[in-house]
Amino acid sequence: MTKTDTIARLLISCPDRPGIVAAVSNFLYSHGVNITTFDQYSTDPEGGTFLSRLEFQTPHMDVSAPVLEQAFTETVAARFDMNWHISYAARPKRTAILVSRLDHCLLELLWLWRRGKLPTDIVLVASNHDDLRPVVEGFGIPFHHVPVEPGPEGKARAEARLLELTGGVDLVVLARYMQILSGAFVSRFPLRIINIHHSFLPAFVGANPYQKAYDKGVKLIGATAHYVIEELDAGPIIEQDVARVTHRHDIGALKDLGRDLERQILARAVRWHLEDRVLLNGNKTVIFE
Amino acid sequence: MTKTDTIARLLISCPDRPGIVAAVSNFLYSHGVNITTFDQYSTDPEGGTFLSRLEFQTPHMDVSAPVLEQAFTETVAARFDMNWHISYAARPKRTAILVSRLDHCLLELLWLWRRGKLPTDIVLVASNHDDLRPVVEGFGIPFHHVPVEPGPEGKARAEARLLELTGGVDLVVLARYMQILSGAFVSRFPLRIINIHHSFLPAFVGANPYQKAYDKGVKLIGATAHYVIEELDAGPIIEQDVARVTHRHDIGALKDLGRDLERQILARAVRWHLEDRVLLNGNKTVIFE
Amino acid sequence: MTKTDTIARLLISCPDRPGIVAAVSNFLYSHGVNITTFDQYSTDPEGGTFLSRLEFQTPHMDVSAPVLEQAFTETVAARFDMNWHISYAARPKRTAILVSRLDHCLLELLWLWRRGKLPTDIVLVASNHDDLRPVVEGFGIPFHHVPVEPGPEGKARAEARLLELTGGVDLVVLARYMQILSGAFVSRFPLRIINIHHSFLPAFVGANPYQKAYDKGVKLIGATAHYVIEELDAGPIIEQDVARVTHRHDIGALKDLGRDLERQILARAVRWHLEDRVLLNGNKTVIFE
Amino acid sequence: MTKTDTIARLLISCPDRPGIVAAVSNFLYSHGVNITTFDQYSTDPEGGTFLSRLEFQTPHMDVSAPVLEQAFTETVAARFDMNWHISYAARPKRTAILVSRLDHCLLELLWLWRRGKLPTDIVLVASNHDDLRPVVEGFGIPFHHVPVEPGPEGKARAEARLLELTGGVDLVVLARYMQILSGAFVSRFPLRIINIHHSFLPAFVGANPYQKAYDKGVKLIGATAHYVIEELDAGPIIEQDVARVTHRHDIGALKDLGRDLERQILARAVRWHLEDRVLLNGNKTVIFE
Repeated sequence: MTKTDTIARLLISCPDRPGIVAAVSNFLYSHGVNITTFDQYSTDPEGGTFLSRLEFQTPHMDVSAPVLEQAFTETVAARFDMNWHISYAARPKRTAILVSRLDHCLLELLWLWRRGKLPTDIVLVASNHDDLRPVVEGFGIPFHHVPVEPGPEGKARAEARLLELTGGVDLVVLARYMQILSGAFVSRFPLRIINIHHSFLPAFVGANPYQKAYDKGVKLIGATAHYVIEELDAGPIIEQDVARVTHRHDIGALKDLGRDLERQILARAVRWHLEDRVLLNGNKTVIFE
Repeated sequence: MTKTDTIARLLISCPDRPGIVAAVSNFLYSHGVNITTFDQYSTDPEGGTFLSRLEFQTPHMDVSAPVLEQAFTETVAARFDMNWHISYAARPKRTAILVSRLDHCLLELLWLWRRGKLPTDIVLVASNHDDLRPVVEGFGIPFHHVPVEPGPEGKARAEARLLELTGGVDLVVLARYMQILSGAFVSRFPLRIINIHHSFLPAFVGANPYQKAYDKGVKLIGATAHYVIEELDAGPIIEQDVARVTHRHDIGALKDLGRDLERQILARAVRWHLEDRVLLNGNKTVIFE
Repeated sequence: MTKTDTIARLLISCPDRPGIVAAVSNFLYSHGVNITTFDQYSTDPEGGTFLSRLEFQTPHMDVSAPVLEQAFTETVAARFDMNWHISYAARPKRTAILVSRLDHCLLELLWLWRRGKLPTDIVLVASNHDDLRPVVEGFGIPFHHVPVEPGPEGKARAEARLLELTGGVDLVVLARYMQILSGAFVSRFPLRIINIHHSFLPAFVGANPYQKAYDKGVKLIGATAHYVIEELDAGPIIEQDVARVTHRHDIGALKDLGRDLERQILARAVRWHLEDRVLLNGNKTVIFE
Repeated sequence: MTKTDTIARLLISCPDRPGIVAAVSNFLYSHGVNITTFDQYSTDPEGGTFLSRLEFQTPHMDVSAPVLEQAFTETVAARFDMNWHISYAARPKRTAILVSRLDHCLLELLWLWRRGKLPTDIVLVASNHDDLRPVVEGFGIPFHHVPVEPGPEGKARAEARLLELTGGVDLVVLARYMQILSGAFVSRFPLRIINIHHSFLPAFVGANPYQKAYDKGVKLIGATAHYVIEELDAGPIIEQDVARVTHRHDIGALKDLGRDLERQILARAVRWHLEDRVLLNGNKTVIFE
């Protein structure tokens, strides 16, 4: 077993009150687990929410993972009314990527994955166009063409096919997938669909954000990676960034510049999600970088 | 006469067609004027708008300024249907600053001005509160307390007083002035009122943008300097910038961080305006930095 | 007692091994102390250094501060071979500022301090010039003119005077103080002198960094806040930042732009130091923001 | 003929004196050439160097390109002692890329080129390793393995082979090519070799800059694209940028983060060179973006 394979991560969310850190760290220490990173944030020490991420190594753990989890439930989690989850680096998340025609976000993810920089199994890429099949298959990843025919029925058929394909998938990444997913689809992957929107949200919600940014004459363009909820472009923001533009940038130049933002922001957000660095605080994210 | 005093600037806006650069540069050259900076931008070489800013030195000019301007009108401007304006560094613009209680933007402008970095005469500061009087008077600048009593009449009286005070003023700077100016007031200073809005417009228009940014969970906060038009926070954007924030920033921290953005962006926008670097292209600005 | 007055901070540095987090959090919990922020970093879980900063609230502490510290020494610190320190927000650090003629860094610190954003007592400002006396005294802070006469004796006399003045001072800030301090002086304030250097160190060590940056044609200029050690401009870096420049920036413009960087970086570094956010890892800093 | 094919660019460098802009613009206007962009910079209006870049469209030009160039030489260039050059978008530059094992810079250039965003013919990729052959050939570009055997003779043999391959090439891009080129090789491509160095030059010249940055504890890492001259890492800087790092970034993380900087900065510098936006002012560059 390599060192990486022995890494596990514990995510906690619970009402804040004294003694949580002591209880959690004691529990892990008493089971031979070595905490290597301990991040913690409280929205308010009095009456707020305690959020925490611990990274620890398991080679000297005195019990099996299921026994540890059972013991944690009984002796710690119940006492503090915790939402919690342990993930193990040895069991990487399974990811599906949806894409339309623009390849820059997809390529960024595939190249990072091939270099070993995205800790996930990319199990499939699906697209409403067939254009990117050769690129995807060149990486040894199954490609599925799922066309979306006009009208509500066409859309429903496409989503049904996508649901079949993504059974067993932990994360769905929309890498410039230009179809709007239905609430029914979204509800199957709560906080497990990441989208890249090509504007600095909440500015320029919806279609054609570069055109809107151009028309408005903004001096910075942006991009936003966020979890998808039913309301369009309104889910919790994971990451955002901007680039400076001038009057000399026409819409084509805005798009070219935006590409660099989009691919990097999406890749960062996906990596953070895969490494269990993103926690929810209401409709906002807490990132333990 | 110092070198700075001999600098003049010619701003041009006209329909683009061949020959403009040749005509303008010939005219100036033939009058002994030395062009030191020539910036030019065309929204579209065919059917678009030509915008240009020339900086030139006048010590060897063969005619007086009025004669030069008259000749330019007749021989060049008429031919190309130009909107144009020449300003002379020896006659700096006259500026009035409006402020409420927060001092950071005001202080930034006053310190830059004292160091000789804002080429303007600051003729007065007016405020709806009396708090900042000692600071302003410490800089040797007249301070006017213009309280705004509740109701439309109070507002009208205050604006009437402000109009009296700002007679002969070239530029009005709203350095976190928390009153909304009426359309009537704004129309007296077309594209000569600069406001600093404490968000990345068009996100978070209106009141309490830091609260809105906090509630939305954005990962960057911003500020925007813009010309004031009658529609709230909708005038042409001069400059914007952002700063990165995390979940650890509460609203107080957002405001502290935002202060740095606000004062710098406002100071930059005001300096650009004073140096005639801001041209209008429809509802957008062209900045010749 | 206000809430702020009950905040304390525990800084720890020790060889990393299992059980530290559990021991520290148990100790504090058992004494009625409520941990509100727990930051931790290990240079290497095996054989590395464990560095940590805890912020906690003391109103329900079951013993006095001296008793708590004595108990911590005996039951926790000794066991893990810790370097540690507790500071109390109710006893802010005492700061002296040294400055020469340029006022921008000094003013930034004074304005932040007046607004309550720098948690310190500024006990004096000293300068080798008398120019800034009115400004400093306007803030109600004692100003001392300590001229530096040419030659080693003049310098020694000046440093002797500065040492007298800074007796009892916790932090010395060099806010563009253009004299090089001797090793003897520096050794009296180990890691308690913060300097702002006007370049992105280690590029452009020593005098005239803006000239060097200009001559080299760099596309970004920078500034660096660092602790002062005997070797010039070589102490641990606390904070750095850069700004983009073009061929249009002459040296004057570089300096103007640099001023914004210098004052902000210095203010950030000083604030972090005052809030006990800066730990040392060899010759490098760890910042728990 | 498409619109792009009719674009030409005139680059000028000469001693500054009055009348240059008028002479150039008159000349072009009189030959039916439509100037679309006119950028100009003077290091000093008195005794300095005038640098300019004009973009113009040729469909209504009244003479052929060679005749225009001959006329320009005789009537304008001679009079002002100009260094000048006209390039035509219809005849793109020919580029060779040298690379070792790291693929991120190479891939960035190849993908941009495939998308039509790098206006050049990439005529070959050469490497001292054979690893990247399939990738390069997948883009339909010839790949040459030019191994460098140890010792001066091995190096000389490799360079001789590279010189053969790059005959007729306008630009050589070192996309993380880890061999130092000899002065003899460099002198064959004066200001026509672009290298990406993985630090913010002049900090961390030479090998292992990420290690040096890590050891120094800098808070920003950088990358620099520059023209190659005989002295190592000392040629004119074209573009630089930085990214923020913390104590949590180990060397691997610095390298991952640095990759994003390197590929973007190199791509930007190469694009600017290909679009004739980079002029030389002594050992510094002037970029007309």
